[in-house]
Amino acid sequence: MPPTAQQIVVILGAGPGLGFGLAKVFSSVGHPVALLSRSLPRLEELAEQLNSDPLGKDGVVRGRARAYQVDATKEDSIRSAFGRFETDFQSEKGHEGARVHTGIFNPGGGFFMSGLLETKPEQLESAFLSQTMGGFLFSRAVVEAIKSRPDFGAKPSEEAFGNILISGATASLRGSKKLSAFAASKCGLRAIAQSAAREFHPEGIHVAHFIIDGLIVTERTDKMLGTNYESGTRMDTNDIAQVYLDVSRQKKSAWTHEIDLRPFSETF
Amino acid sequence: MPPTAQQIVVILGAGPGLGFGLAKVFSSVGHPVALLSRSLPRLEELAEQLNSDPLGKDGVVRGRARAYQVDATKEDSIRSAFGRFETDFQSEKGHEGARVHTGIFNPGGGFFMSGLLETKPEQLESAFLSQTMGGFLFSRAVVEAIKSRPDFGAKPSEEAFGNILISGATASLRGSKKLSAFAASKCGLRAIAQSAAREFHPEGIHVAHFIIDGLIVTERTDKMLGTNYESGTRMDTNDIAQVYLDVSRQKKSAWTHEIDLRPFSETF
Amino acid sequence: MPPTAQQIVVILGAGPGLGFGLAKVFSSVGHPVALLSRSLPRLEELAEQLNSDPLGKDGVVRGRARAYQVDATKEDSIRSAFGRFETDFQSEKGHEGARVHTGIFNPGGGFFMSGLLETKPEQLESAFLSQTMGGFLFSRAVVEAIKSRPDFGAKPSEEAFGNILISGATASLRGSKKLSAFAASKCGLRAIAQSAAREFHPEGIHVAHFIIDGLIVTERTDKMLGTNYESGTRMDTNDIAQVYLDVSRQKKSAWTHEIDLRPFSETF
Amino acid sequence: MPPTAQQIVVILGAGPGLGFGLAKVFSSVGHPVALLSRSLPRLEELAEQLNSDPLGKDGVVRGRARAYQVDATKEDSIRSAFGRFETDFQSEKGHEGARVHTGIFNPGGGFFMSGLLETKPEQLESAFLSQTMGGFLFSRAVVEAIKSRPDFGAKPSEEAFGNILISGATASLRGSKKLSAFAASKCGLRAIAQSAAREFHPEGIHVAHFIIDGLIVTERTDKMLGTNYESGTRMDTNDIAQVYLDVSRQKKSAWTHEIDLRPFSETF
Repeated sequence: MPPTAQQIVVILGAGPGLGFGLAKVFSSVGHPVALLSRSLPRLEELAEQLNSDPLGKDGVVRGRARAYQVDATKEDSIRSAFGRFETDFQSEKGHEGARVHTGIFNPGGGFFMSGLLETKPEQLESAFLSQTMGGFLFSRAVVEAIKSRPDFGAKPSEEAFGNILISGATASLRGSKKLSAFAASKCGLRAIAQSAAREFHPEGIHVAHFIIDGLIVTERTDKMLGTNYESGTRMDTNDIAQVYLDVSRQKKSAWTHEIDLRPFSETF
Repeated sequence: MPPTAQQIVVILGAGPGLGFGLAKVFSSVGHPVALLSRSLPRLEELAEQLNSDPLGKDGVVRGRARAYQVDATKEDSIRSAFGRFETDFQSEKGHEGARVHTGIFNPGGGFFMSGLLETKPEQLESAFLSQTMGGFLFSRAVVEAIKSRPDFGAKPSEEAFGNILISGATASLRGSKKLSAFAASKCGLRAIAQSAAREFHPEGIHVAHFIIDGLIVTERTDKMLGTNYESGTRMDTNDIAQVYLDVSRQKKSAWTHEIDLRPFSETF
Repeated sequence: MPPTAQQIVVILGAGPGLGFGLAKVFSSVGHPVALLSRSLPRLEELAEQLNSDPLGKDGVVRGRARAYQVDATKEDSIRSAFGRFETDFQSEKGHEGARVHTGIFNPGGGFFMSGLLETKPEQLESAFLSQTMGGFLFSRAVVEAIKSRPDFGAKPSEEAFGNILISGATASLRGSKKLSAFAASKCGLRAIAQSAAREFHPEGIHVAHFIIDGLIVTERTDKMLGTNYESGTRMDTNDIAQVYLDVSRQKKSAWTHEIDLRPFSETF
Repeated sequence: MPPTAQQIVVILGAGPGLGFGLAKVFSSVGHPVALLSRSLPRLEELAEQLNSDPLGKDGVVRGRARAYQVDATKEDSIRSAFGRFETDFQSEKGHEGARVHTGIFNPGGGFFMSGLLETKPEQLESAFLSQTMGGFLFSRAVVEAIKSRPDFGAKPSEEAFGNILISGATASLRGSKKLSAFAASKCGLRAIAQSAAREFHPEGIHVAHFIIDGLIVTERTDKMLGTNYESGTRMDTNDIAQVYLDVSRQKKSAWTHEIDLRPFSETF
């Protein structure tokens, strides 16, 4: 049994876009994946889709996927979900002994495009809750789960005891025109990521923030913008997810905290 | 009558620290100043202190000060205050015709120093409300007040139609260890400032963000840390306020959006 | 005699654009100004123009201007000029006792727009010499001149013992397409400014870097682009220079190291 | 034969530190590696060391290593080396058809720690030549080599046509005290990397800049600082090199331009 089979990867915001790409890539190397989202039916379909194809990469048995309904803006909801992952996966064949190892915060919500006077305070609050508060609550839950493992801090290791991987955007770096609410929430999330890295890196928990600067291929973007585009000019969710996987496997002597990602064709 | 006497400067967070220094400096060149804060009694004392010394700088008659109790996290509270400034000041001798010209957002609140696991979600929310939401609501109110003036957009001018000046901190640029809540709220506020600048600069409303990177001299810091320090190693509120005044007077062809300020002795 | 009359301001890159605006504004408050440039004839005209109008601002007697031919890329050339300023100005009425107080590095040169393969190594070297090396040599000369004054370090003061003010550009922050040589030289210059600030701020010498992000009105831009533009959409050299003056007068408890400047109409 | 065997990786600055780690990792997946440095004898030893162990990773035959004496500050020297790589490797068994695919610029030189007045102009120039000019000349040579391949631009691909990977440092982001020359040269190099990325990404050539923020384990650091340190607190060259390899393999839809790397224990 590869160690990945014992390392649960929790993905918050596991809808049909990047979240599912992350689930595919992390399960393909053996990690059991907990898919978290606000609405369950679609999520269960995605979990089912992964579980129906037990073949991972390079002959590895794909990790099992399970769906969980979670409201990321509510501490209770997150806590309750984190209380179930380990029991649930440990009862599955091949995942005996599985513990939470990596949390990926890939939030939807908070994207409003409007001038400052047209933006409602409720939208600013909603963006804050989805992105900043969600990232705060999720990161805490991941840290607590990692710290509760008996192997945590037990002996020096070349590897991280676990990872927190956070999806940012161009708006994580700057407040563009008509994006005040979203940018405020993404800049706030980035600050959480930085504080967490500075606090938990020395304890062996790796925190990385991904600046995703481009249009991601999803069912929705395909529908809205058509599928007639040159290959590589929109971001493939598998390609992005591979980079998350690479970063999660960095050795402790060379950790990335922030990394940007964009299509070759993107102006920046 | 100098034009400054007709330009109301609204200072949110006008307590005994930097807020009062700003009130002193802006009133000293003739601006009527509206002092806004959560608690009224102390504020009225400060207004009284200014009004008791009608002598401004270089022979200018000092602008009048008035105190207003405002909860910056509540849209109603801010709106209600903005509904009163012009009527109130226009009834005072020398300030006939006064209109809102400049808003300074200098918020207190939101400073919590604790590890991620020790920080409460309510603290993150509270920091967000004081800093990010407050800056959002205040900036909107200032823009609306400026835009309602008949001279707004009337004819090209070398001068700003008005200013929004926002107090940031080192935490506006980075999430330090044990400062997640405060940094998230300050980074969020900075994003609001950037979005507002990009939207309103072309309309002639100047938005500037001040990175204040050092300890400000206040009654409180004097009490906590003593007064035995080399001159200039703590930030004098008059010195800072003078820079806010300089920036508020920049001509439209050369506007600053972001400026840092620190004592000569500060490591950075 | 106002103290400004004893504070020599040395302006390197004092040609007919921003350099002359700086000379006008600093001399208008009484500073004697040393104008430095590669070619003398035009510079002497500009000095003459200032000297022919002895009226400064607010009744202040304008400081005298003198022209010096200097090659900023050569240490000898800079040293030789710095050896003459004080003797020259001290012999002028009103400037007895004048010493070097502020140096402004406002370099021309180094602007090449071409792809990486089309840019010549000689152009990269030339940009480096004009901007990075020039800023290094000039800053050293200013620091040495300030440190040689008997009042330097003599007693604590609220004021800077002197200033180094450096003109940057958008290219100081990023390497845009087809601007590799210029951006490398401007980013290098910014690093010099930062190192100098961190070293000399604690000694009371103020180093500030100005990010000028817009088209400056000059004879040349007027000729190339016409003069039919809305007021304020191109940067007025007096407006920029006023900000340099403001920053040079900041008290030691609140010093700016970096400040951006752009027209209200500029996208950023 | 894996395609890596046809993709020459050119490493400038291939001495016994990170350069050799890069050579080990890239050759371990089959790439022929050209090791470039100022002094040949040590370099030939390193090449020999790699060639003596033909076993790569996961059963891959290790790519051959060859040593080249190059002065990175001289265009002729770089050009002359680039004229030899393909002929040299193509004559080796397993590397028939090999072409230049990836260039890694990992320069030594330019590190001087001294105050601004103590730094010599020759040191600033020397740092510029090693870092900024070297990066400029090397990047051009890599681009030209990639563009001369018949497959360049031939058909859309998910993969980069080639990579330019550049080693930066903390000094690439800021001018610290007493590091003016080194920081200027590293900031200049970063500007070159950014300009190159913006120009060549759309053509399918990937440019990535690595901010290495920590002490790298080398023979020299072991000798100077001893080897009694907790594992992972100094940067292992294999761990860093693995990240370079990951980035070089990113698909075109998700390219990183800048990534930071530091030990888990590093304060930042």
